[in-house]
Amino acid sequence: MDLAALRDAHPDHWKMATAIRTLTLDAVIAAQSGHSGMPMGMADIATVLWRNHLKFDPKEPHWPDRDRFIVSNGHGSMLLYSLLHLTGYEQMTLEELKNFRQWGSRTPGHPEHGHAEGIDTTTGPLGQGFANSVGFAIAEEHLRARFGKKLVDHRTWVFAGDGCLMEGVSQEALALAGHQKLGKLTVFFDDNKITIDGDLSLADSTDQMKRFEASGWHVQTIDGHDPEAIDAAIEAAKADPRPSVIDCKTHIALGHAAQDTGKGHGALTDEDAAKAAKEAYGWSYGPFEIPADIKSDWEALGARGAEERKAWQERVDAMAAGKRAKFDQAMLGTVPKKLTSTIRALKKQMSETAPKLATRAASQKALEVINPVMPETLGGSADLTGSNNTKTEGLEVFSPENRGGRYVHFGIREHGMAAAMNGMALHGGVRPYGGTFLVFSDYARASMRLSALMSMPVVYVMTHDSIGLGEDGPTHQPVEQLAALRAIPNMLVLRPADPVEVAEAWEIALERTDGPTVLALSRQGVPTVREQHKSKNLSAQGAYVLADAEAKRQAILMATGSEVAIALEARRQLEAEGIGVRVVSVPSMELFAQQEESYRRRVLPGGAVRVAIEAAVRQPWDRWLSGERGREAKAGFIGMDQFGASAPQEVLYKAFGITAEATVAEVKRLLG
Amino acid sequence: MDLAALRDAHPDHWKMATAIRTLTLDAVIAAQSGHSGMPMGMADIATVLWRNHLKFDPKEPHWPDRDRFIVSNGHGSMLLYSLLHLTGYEQMTLEELKNFRQWGSRTPGHPEHGHAEGIDTTTGPLGQGFANSVGFAIAEEHLRARFGKKLVDHRTWVFAGDGCLMEGVSQEALALAGHQKLGKLTVFFDDNKITIDGDLSLADSTDQMKRFEASGWHVQTIDGHDPEAIDAAIEAAKADPRPSVIDCKTHIALGHAAQDTGKGHGALTDEDAAKAAKEAYGWSYGPFEIPADIKSDWEALGARGAEERKAWQERVDAMAAGKRAKFDQAMLGTVPKKLTSTIRALKKQMSETAPKLATRAASQKALEVINPVMPETLGGSADLTGSNNTKTEGLEVFSPENRGGRYVHFGIREHGMAAAMNGMALHGGVRPYGGTFLVFSDYARASMRLSALMSMPVVYVMTHDSIGLGEDGPTHQPVEQLAALRAIPNMLVLRPADPVEVAEAWEIALERTDGPTVLALSRQGVPTVREQHKSKNLSAQGAYVLADAEAKRQAILMATGSEVAIALEARRQLEAEGIGVRVVSVPSMELFAQQEESYRRRVLPGGAVRVAIEAAVRQPWDRWLSGERGREAKAGFIGMDQFGASAPQEVLYKAFGITAEATVAEVKRLLG
Repeated sequence: MDLAALRDAHPDHWKMATAIRTLTLDAVIAAQSGHSGMPMGMADIATVLWRNHLKFDPKEPHWPDRDRFIVSNGHGSMLLYSLLHLTGYEQMTLEELKNFRQWGSRTPGHPEHGHAEGIDTTTGPLGQGFANSVGFAIAEEHLRARFGKKLVDHRTWVFAGDGCLMEGVSQEALALAGHQKLGKLTVFFDDNKITIDGDLSLADSTDQMKRFEASGWHVQTIDGHDPEAIDAAIEAAKADPRPSVIDCKTHIALGHAAQDTGKGHGALTDEDAAKAAKEAYGWSYGPFEIPADIKSDWEALGARGAEERKAWQERVDAMAAGKRAKFDQAMLGTVPKKLTSTIRALKKQMSETAPKLATRAASQKALEVINPVMPETLGGSADLTGSNNTKTEGLEVFSPENRGGRYVHFGIREHGMAAAMNGMALHGGVRPYGGTFLVFSDYARASMRLSALMSMPVVYVMTHDSIGLGEDGPTHQPVEQLAALRAIPNMLVLRPADPVEVAEAWEIALERTDGPTVLALSRQGVPTVREQHKSKNLSAQGAYVLADAEAKRQAILMATGSEVAIALEARRQLEAEGIGVRVVSVPSMELFAQQEESYRRRVLPGGAVRVAIEAAVRQPWDRWLSGERGREAKAGFIGMDQFGASAPQEVLYKAFGITAEATVAEVKRLLG
Repeated sequence: MDLAALRDAHPDHWKMATAIRTLTLDAVIAAQSGHSGMPMGMADIATVLWRNHLKFDPKEPHWPDRDRFIVSNGHGSMLLYSLLHLTGYEQMTLEELKNFRQWGSRTPGHPEHGHAEGIDTTTGPLGQGFANSVGFAIAEEHLRARFGKKLVDHRTWVFAGDGCLMEGVSQEALALAGHQKLGKLTVFFDDNKITIDGDLSLADSTDQMKRFEASGWHVQTIDGHDPEAIDAAIEAAKADPRPSVIDCKTHIALGHAAQDTGKGHGALTDEDAAKAAKEAYGWSYGPFEIPADIKSDWEALGARGAEERKAWQERVDAMAAGKRAKFDQAMLGTVPKKLTSTIRALKKQMSETAPKLATRAASQKALEVINPVMPETLGGSADLTGSNNTKTEGLEVFSPENRGGRYVHFGIREHGMAAAMNGMALHGGVRPYGGTFLVFSDYARASMRLSALMSMPVVYVMTHDSIGLGEDGPTHQPVEQLAALRAIPNMLVLRPADPVEVAEAWEIALERTDGPTVLALSRQGVPTVREQHKSKNLSAQGAYVLADAEAKRQAILMATGSEVAIALEARRQLEAEGIGVRVVSVPSMELFAQQEESYRRRVLPGGAVRVAIEAAVRQPWDRWLSGERGREAKAGFIGMDQFGASAPQEVLYKAFGITAEATVAEVKRLLG
């Protein structure tokens, strides 16, 4: 590349872009780790986008109507940190850049939502940011339909690299975006032909633009270092009604000795090489030094958004009170006051009528009363609508023709669905829930982890939650998924036992604003076990005494979901023989763990044998079986230690020994 | 559809295809569940393929040079079962079809590899079969390069539906196949425009053929009910050097009242409707009745392959003894005799030189000696070759120009890599291993589960196995992945502590022929802790006493991987204060669980407090902390209960309290 020619053609642009490049070089050298190449390669694109197009106000980073900027190739985090610093985000001080990748800094190796204002999503695991962006754009379209263009009218911009586009989730995302005609979404593809292993040609020869075209995207190809071409492409993208992808031919680590190499992708820590690169840029300043004129050029564009934001605030202030209240409620993200009474009424009805119902069907009953009182919910399923029971009466389908629709047909794209729901939750104003079979949480897991890491209130409706789904067999029967999900920090897993617990579980999930919830629901019918109506949400304690011993307590049975009925039947049989048995329903281990120790010991006192019953692997149960202090109880487990099989569910429960009879036998064995 | 016209145009074909359709209808009615639509829609394609092209011999289902037939849309399992029955696979009796989806049958809801001969892979989770096929085709190309076209010359045929192509893994698979120019791979796309939720247009509008073209595939579009068009397309696919996809326009549930509807996708159990469909087919036979002439037409094509197979066997028998031995060894899939001595020599060297080495680097040292003595290994990485240390000296790259290469650049495609490795292992003749970061097991998990379900000897080399990776931060730091992988039945997880345990872990992984192995390896350097050479593979016991108490035993420390050194240091400090401490290294909980109880109790006797140390969540440890019988030990855990952070690794270990000092304090607290 002839850097001098670039510099001379657009001197102001060049200086601004160079500030990103040199801050990146300096920060990576300071940290002695990081990824220099991407920010150096995409600095021109970022500069043009932020300078001429991005709607934002560094003084109001949470402005709901700002554009969203997503660095899907998150290893290039210094690009974002540089932009936030240069444009005047208060939290992103020069000190933070100097502490790149250090303990307690706002500048971790990859952008972490919540660590600093202006980071719209957490990225690093490739493809996730791009897939989030589809959810951002859906939320924007939907809220615009709901509240009007005066209040909601912004764009979503994505930086993505080869890695993002090679990950399968990118296909799910782009196909969904193309189908939904999300015209306010624009992706800049950093087409530098380099990956960590070296030349892209080692592993890929895909015509990426043709692939986007195949799903209805507007595509362009430009020189990613030509500011005029970048600007023109952005204008064209804005003008086109389709989602846009701009194939930006770039040079990774532009101007550095490692330019256009796999080495350039990583940490360029050689100080002499950095010096040489700066010289080639015509940059004569010290490490982390940004001349005042360049900083002020950047701050000026940061200030540009303030007026637009003020005008927006005036429009908000001018709203009619009723509409304003709805808008505020949506932006707040909390549950409506009515939810409590709605759930209570449902619980009352369920405990009185005591139907035998699959918990997935009970979940639909809950949603039937929730969706009308909570207009923020945006539901969907990965092509299992009828099985997941996620679509309620009168819920219209979200589509290009009906942006007010509140139900998304995500297609057979569990991973893309989860990532899109993260984007919706990050955007705010909507409360996403989406369904698939519990076993297919495996497909969505990388995004579900990010829901937890980002503390996003996403609800995963996961039905067919055990061998109880029957004939579809082991490929469809979750055995280890409950354990695997419970292992994720900040993931709340609820496996309700009956329609009453299902109603409580939904209340807990919706009231939770700082993390995701999995609802594990049965395909098969289960009896209502909470026949006595209590207005208190017992499930919120995680575990509680459902039926206590009548004879002297010798055993405690713990169970979840469809196995609670088995525990109750085992109790009946044992009590008939004079053996006192307490049954503890455990809708959520995480919530139980959060209770005071005194409550936990009241529910699970020592001195009795313990048996847990769950049609899944034992791993998460040992904590509760052994007693938290150790040395408390003799214990047994009734569940699965292998994959399932294809047969009617009653046959499977017998064949795998998950029955009241087996439970009774285990209790007696332990009692000796 | 004018069924009469179809029937009259190709009466013999029609009868044969109708046998598939009616067996499907009958089996689904008998089971009262299942998926009727796909077999009824794809019967014509299957009939032409099996009749005119597929190389197979029902009498020798394991013939290595047979074509592979993969039903990626596995819910249409009755298509495969019908074909196996009709062509004379001995195990697939009419009785098995009648027992469709019943306990103990060979005909589960989705095809399960190992349940009946002729099932080349387990499918059902969508996209997996297609993604497996890439591995099948790679294995075929590689073995052809190694042993010659006379011994290895077969094709891979895939049936796939909309669901398979919507799943992201399909993109990873097709991009890899296109890049690798896998010309002997052909995919039939069941383009019926219907999914479970209804019309495909609810969720997708992708031009699938354009997408395949974008990755270098040969594409065709045909009427999937026209036998001549199907045959011509197959001929064209065979003639083209690129991988081929044939867009087959089909009618789901052809000829049934539910044709072309979402209902047609599922179980068509209405007997009157089935009767009407049979009438429309011109089929006047009873349930499960196949007239002798039609059955004999099918059996004749089943018999056709016998001659080809005999000729192949003669060529095998005519091989030179040395080459024959190599071929047999490859097909056998076991480790070479030399492996044991090779590993022993490496262990001796490591324990004598006792280097401080990252276990990922030790893994490379192991591979450096394994690959030369085991020519079946086929390695690779998802674009992290230098980080995973998976490429050894002199290993050439597998490419269209060098099919003999033994290293695959899988690209940034963890899911596709895992699925392809399953395909390679299923194919046989090669032993795949592939690398990524441990945290990205989340991306590959759906395929890893299938490795376990199918008992495939795939080795997952997963480096950067904890917060010890440092600055990349929480998105890259596994915390819950060890728990999540240990939860999968039949998954063997090994987290070796030092170069000696790494060598043992590789030996265990390669000697394992009935399931997958995860090697969790550190980024950071660790000391060699097994300094005394023992030729016995101690890791094979899962856990063993690494250092016993000198003073009276009061505590047992358990640890894995990089935390074993922390346990040893804590022991040193405690012994200095007169507190006797045993250190147990636990490279694999699964292997330890398989030992005799007497051994387990010898390693973990009662009467001492227990502390486990692992830079990950506690969940899998409670079993060993509490004592398997419960009531054995007071216990503590030093590890993670939240996500990690971005900082140098030494800082993180201190900040999260995973240190010898914290361990010492916990032991003392427990001793009271």
